[in-house]
Amino acid sequence: MKTINIFGVTGSIGQSTVKVLNQQRGKYSIEAITAGQNVVLLAKLAIELGAKIAVIANRSKFDELKSLLANHPIEVDCGEDGLVRVAEREVDICLAAIVGYAGLKPTLVSLKYAKRVALANKECLVAAGDLFIAEAEKYGCEIIPVDSEHSAMAQCLRGSKSSEMEKILLTASGGPFRTFTMPEMKDITLKQALKHPNWDMGAKITIDSATLMNKGNELIEAYHLFPISLEDIEVVIHKQSIIHSMIQYCDGSVIAQLGTPEMGTAISYALGYPDRLSLNFKRLDLFDIAELNFEKPDETRFKCLTLAKQSVTIGGACGAVLNAANEVAVHAFLQESISFLEIANICEETMTRAQSDQIMDQANTLADICETDRQARIIATSLLNLSK
Amino acid sequence: MKTINIFGVTGSIGQSTVKVLNQQRGKYSIEAITAGQNVVLLAKLAIELGAKIAVIANRSKFDELKSLLANHPIEVDCGEDGLVRVAEREVDICLAAIVGYAGLKPTLVSLKYAKRVALANKECLVAAGDLFIAEAEKYGCEIIPVDSEHSAMAQCLRGSKSSEMEKILLTASGGPFRTFTMPEMKDITLKQALKHPNWDMGAKITIDSATLMNKGNELIEAYHLFPISLEDIEVVIHKQSIIHSMIQYCDGSVIAQLGTPEMGTAISYALGYPDRLSLNFKRLDLFDIAELNFEKPDETRFKCLTLAKQSVTIGGACGAVLNAANEVAVHAFLQESISFLEIANICEETMTRAQSDQIMDQANTLADICETDRQARIIATSLLNLSK
Repeated sequence: MKTINIFGVTGSIGQSTVKVLNQQRGKYSIEAITAGQNVVLLAKLAIELGAKIAVIANRSKFDELKSLLANHPIEVDCGEDGLVRVAEREVDICLAAIVGYAGLKPTLVSLKYAKRVALANKECLVAAGDLFIAEAEKYGCEIIPVDSEHSAMAQCLRGSKSSEMEKILLTASGGPFRTFTMPEMKDITLKQALKHPNWDMGAKITIDSATLMNKGNELIEAYHLFPISLEDIEVVIHKQSIIHSMIQYCDGSVIAQLGTPEMGTAISYALGYPDRLSLNFKRLDLFDIAELNFEKPDETRFKCLTLAKQSVTIGGACGAVLNAANEVAVHAFLQESISFLEIANICEETMTRAQSDQIMDQANTLADICETDRQARIIATSLLNLSK
Repeated sequence: MKTINIFGVTGSIGQSTVKVLNQQRGKYSIEAITAGQNVVLLAKLAIELGAKIAVIANRSKFDELKSLLANHPIEVDCGEDGLVRVAEREVDICLAAIVGYAGLKPTLVSLKYAKRVALANKECLVAAGDLFIAEAEKYGCEIIPVDSEHSAMAQCLRGSKSSEMEKILLTASGGPFRTFTMPEMKDITLKQALKHPNWDMGAKITIDSATLMNKGNELIEAYHLFPISLEDIEVVIHKQSIIHSMIQYCDGSVIAQLGTPEMGTAISYALGYPDRLSLNFKRLDLFDIAELNFEKPDETRFKCLTLAKQSVTIGGACGAVLNAANEVAVHAFLQESISFLEIANICEETMTRAQSDQIMDQANTLADICETDRQARIIATSLLNLSK
């Protein structure tokens, strides 16, 4: 039996992981599970999964967790230091699905103690890609991506030498404003932006999908995960989101991975690799889908894609700056205090100022990244005030 | 350097192989090349490729071959026995691209002497699948398919266990009559049938593409090449022919191989496996293609697909019967002596009579297959005379 930590078990990836594990009885033993806020679900899942320890990040919920698990032989812990303590347990697999910046530290620590990190947290690679990959190499930790696009790339590379890879074709739904003209984009409302055509997600990532910043982030992640140059990662708008990404090889062959929006496949691939686990989920029905389309992204309308590429070229902690600026800007858009197009403008201007202020030259430690993040948030926030 | 025999060097696969080899200088050494009729091109290629021996199947052209190569240190041979003699040379790879029934014997012999058969001849698996696979296993010869669909399957299975495979999705262009109604199909002319929407091929295979017998044959081939049950091979009509086939896995993931109609990739995959060779051919442009479509095949209008499945279910030498009947029927259609829809009817009736006559029970030796083929041709020809 392989031992697993599940960081962020009550989120959407965490819950899909539970569904996958429920179909794999006897193969995995759950060490620790963690949640940010949802203490009731955390306790319920700890009992169901037979976890050894449950950690609630929000300290104010710790007493509730203790009482919920009082009659069960399950250890409890809390806070960011509690997350780090469970990250320091040696396990076969750490499923890292804490959403946002909060996932960075425990996931970084896990690289030292887990044999494999099944990576669903975006910030590890977007904000701290070089550091994260260097730590993984230092400790010999295997990183298998859980994001459907990067899982697709890994699946398309299965059994292949990375030297045979010529190009990554990163597919993107294009979001709800794919066909909008620039004048139409000026008037995008919050309500319009929160409606994603293909699936339901949290508000932050829904907006990131609408600006294509989510795709920009995925481009940065792909750059760090696979040995490829930036120019050889191409974004392909594919509105049906059935092809999750493709690899073009040195002989011209293109291998694509297709599937339903169901996250189970990517999760089980990251758990079972190098094997595939049998899953009893709905299968893809190409006859029902009938049509797949492809078009080039328009980086004039979707400037976040360009910014993401620039952040890779600039290097250092520029990913942390872009990530911080985008979080601040999206938060302001969700508050209806800036317009949709201003999100990219604030990101761009924050990057420019961060570069001239030299706040992103150091990216060697988590402290460097955190300091850059802090300063970038100050810049972005000041820009918000200007734009009011 | 790996040694190669190229059977059928002057055909379309043979010539594509030459293009691939021209981009791989120093990696392969050409042992023997063979041709059916085209002695001038055979001699030219023997000189260009530095082949050790050139074989012309048509004995009446042997003198011409001798004089064309008189001043070159290249051995010459001729006839079916000459093909068998070069098949008996030990080589790393035999590229088996003789078209039709004539390819069966030399390819069968090659299984004993070549480490790998890169298989482009359809009849080996369609007419003699069980025998061919048994011989390959007996001599430990690796079979790598060169047909674009089966190469796609092999590529999608790269690095995977065959036990993880759940389904093969065999794509089909659907041919020129994909959208025809049954009444329209009654009036199909030879001229209409010879126009293939996606590529140029020989007349026989163009008609097979129009009746979907070609796809039926590929279904039979897939059944023999991969450890899968008949029910788990599904034909998917995909008119653009960009996806060459797909594999659905036990976790719901679908891996597809895409490419241009160029045969270079499939050939180089069969030569270079387990590596991919670098090829300088035009790359796939998904933006230019823009759309991929999928639909279910209609086996009422395209009965040859049903017949191919039935031939697998019946087993024995039934594939040889279907292959022989189809050759006779297509030949008659090309002579405009039967209608388009009669091709399938003659195949069906030949199978029925062959079954009641018990001519296809023995399929253990090449002699068994040849005898079944001979008798099936007699039946099919007698049916032609009836339908006049």
